[in-house]
Amino acid sequence: MEELFKPRIGIIGGKGRMGRWFERLFKDTGHEVLISDVDTELKGEDLTKECHVIIFALPMEVFPQVVKELGPKIPEESFMTDICSLKEKQVKVMLENSVCEVCGTHPLFGPGEKDLKGLRVALCPSRGQRWYQWWKEFLIENGALVAEFTPQEHDRTMAWVQALNHFILLCLGKSLEEDGINFEHVLKLATPSFERQLNIVARLCLQDPELYATIQLGNPYTKTAVNTFTKHARDLKKILDGGDREGFLKIFKEVQELGPTLLKYCRKGL
Amino acid sequence: MEELFKPRIGIIGGKGRMGRWFERLFKDTGHEVLISDVDTELKGEDLTKECHVIIFALPMEVFPQVVKELGPKIPEESFMTDICSLKEKQVKVMLENSVCEVCGTHPLFGPGEKDLKGLRVALCPSRGQRWYQWWKEFLIENGALVAEFTPQEHDRTMAWVQALNHFILLCLGKSLEEDGINFEHVLKLATPSFERQLNIVARLCLQDPELYATIQLGNPYTKTAVNTFTKHARDLKKILDGGDREGFLKIFKEVQELGPTLLKYCRKGL
Repeated sequence: MEELFKPRIGIIGGKGRMGRWFERLFKDTGHEVLISDVDTELKGEDLTKECHVIIFALPMEVFPQVVKELGPKIPEESFMTDICSLKEKQVKVMLENSVCEVCGTHPLFGPGEKDLKGLRVALCPSRGQRWYQWWKEFLIENGALVAEFTPQEHDRTMAWVQALNHFILLCLGKSLEEDGINFEHVLKLATPSFERQLNIVARLCLQDPELYATIQLGNPYTKTAVNTFTKHARDLKKILDGGDREGFLKIFKEVQELGPTLLKYCRKGL
Repeated sequence: MEELFKPRIGIIGGKGRMGRWFERLFKDTGHEVLISDVDTELKGEDLTKECHVIIFALPMEVFPQVVKELGPKIPEESFMTDICSLKEKQVKVMLENSVCEVCGTHPLFGPGEKDLKGLRVALCPSRGQRWYQWWKEFLIENGALVAEFTPQEHDRTMAWVQALNHFILLCLGKSLEEDGINFEHVLKLATPSFERQLNIVARLCLQDPELYATIQLGNPYTKTAVNTFTKHARDLKKILDGGDREGFLKIFKEVQELGPTLLKYCRKGL
C-alpha cells in the first residue's frame, strides 16, 4: 500500500452511537466515509462495492443476519471488520460468509469517550495480513492500546472483564436499594474506596441495557466466571459467620499479593 | 473559648500511622502536641492531665482496655475522642469510663492521604457541646466533609460502606486468582469500568489486614449487608442460568435509576 493512500471507509449501521463515533474518528483523520443504515439512501449492498474497508457497527442481535446478507458481496481485496463485544460466533459468521480479509475488533469502551487515546481495543486477526496491519497501525497511531487475541481467548477473558464485573455491580446496586439501608447515609459515609465503587455503579446509567444483556447472556463463559465468584462469596461468608479471624486474614493477605501486578497494569486517574 | 486559644493536644497511641498523621495535622495548624505510646517516656496517665484534647488513636483490640484505664483520669473540663472505625461499643466504653466531654470520631480514610481536604469524617457527638463544636469546626476549617451520626446509625451504615465493600473486593480478588483465568489477559482487556474496579482491589495492599478483620468481624450489622448482597447474587445468577433476558433487563434498569443520586453524591476523579 502506498504511504499516502487513504482507504474509503464504509460503516454499516453507521447511524448508531458507535457507528457515528467511528465515522467522526475516520473523518478527523482525513478519510472519506460512507454510511449505510436502515433509513439511508445508500444501501449496504452498494456500500460494500464502493469501500475498501467495511465496518459492521450493529447490535449483536442483528449482526449475523446482516453479515450473511452482505458478507458475500464484499470483494476479495477488501477488508471486513466489526465492533461486537463478543468474538467467537461473530468472527465465525464473518469468515463463513465472505472471501475478503477479516479481523474481529472489540473497542473496549463506549461512545461517551472523546477520542481513542489510551483506550483499549482487542483485535482478533482472522483472514489476511495486509489490511490487518493497516487497521492495527491506524488504531495505534490514534492512541489506542491494542491487544491481539484469538476469538476464544477474547470471549473467555471478557466473561471476567465484562460479565462478572457487571454481575457484581448489579448485585451491589440492588443491595443499596434494600429496605433498612439509608442510601443518603451510605453516600455521606463513603470511604474513598467505596466512593470509587459507587462511581462505577453510576456509570451503568450511561450504558445500553440491551447490549449489556447480550454481553451477559451471549457469552458461554459467563457461567464459569459467575460460579467462581459466588463460590468465593459463599466461602468468605462462612468465614465471617463463623467469626474466623485467621481465615479472614489469610484471604485478605492473598488478595493483597495481587496488588503489585494490578498496579503494574491498571492506570490510575481514569 | 477565646478566638486565638489553641488547645494542647494529646495523642494516646501517637506512634501509630494514624496517630502520626493527626500529630502532623495538629502541628501544621499551630498546636502543641504531646504523644504517648507503649515506648514513650511520657505516660498516658500524665498526658491526660496535661492536655485539653485527648485523642485515643489505638487499634480497636486494645482500645477498650486503655480507655478503661485512662478515661477516668481525664478532667471533667477536657475532651476525649477516638478514631475507631466502629462506634457503638467504642462510644459506650468512652462514656462509661469518663466524666469529660466525649465525641466519637471516624476518619473515613487511611494514613496514605496527604491532608484533610475533601476527606470524610463521621462524628458521633456524645457528651458536651463546647469541645464538640471546636472539634467539628477544626475539621471543617481544614477541608474535611463532616457528617453527624448516632453510633448505631454509623455502624449500621459502615456495614455497607466498609464490610460489604471489602467483602466484594476480596471475592473478586480471589476469583481473579482462579485456575483457568489468564490474569494478564484480563488486565489487557480491561474496560474503563473494570480497570477502575481493579484499581480499587489494588488499594487493599496499602491497608492493614488486622484493622480490616476487625471492621469485618466486629460490626454486628455486617451479616445483614453480606446476606443482602449474596441474596441478590443468587437471584441474578438464577436469571442468568435461565437465560432470562427480560429479568436481566429489569434489574439493569432498576440499578440505572440509582445513577442520578449516586452522581449527585459521589465525586469523580478520586
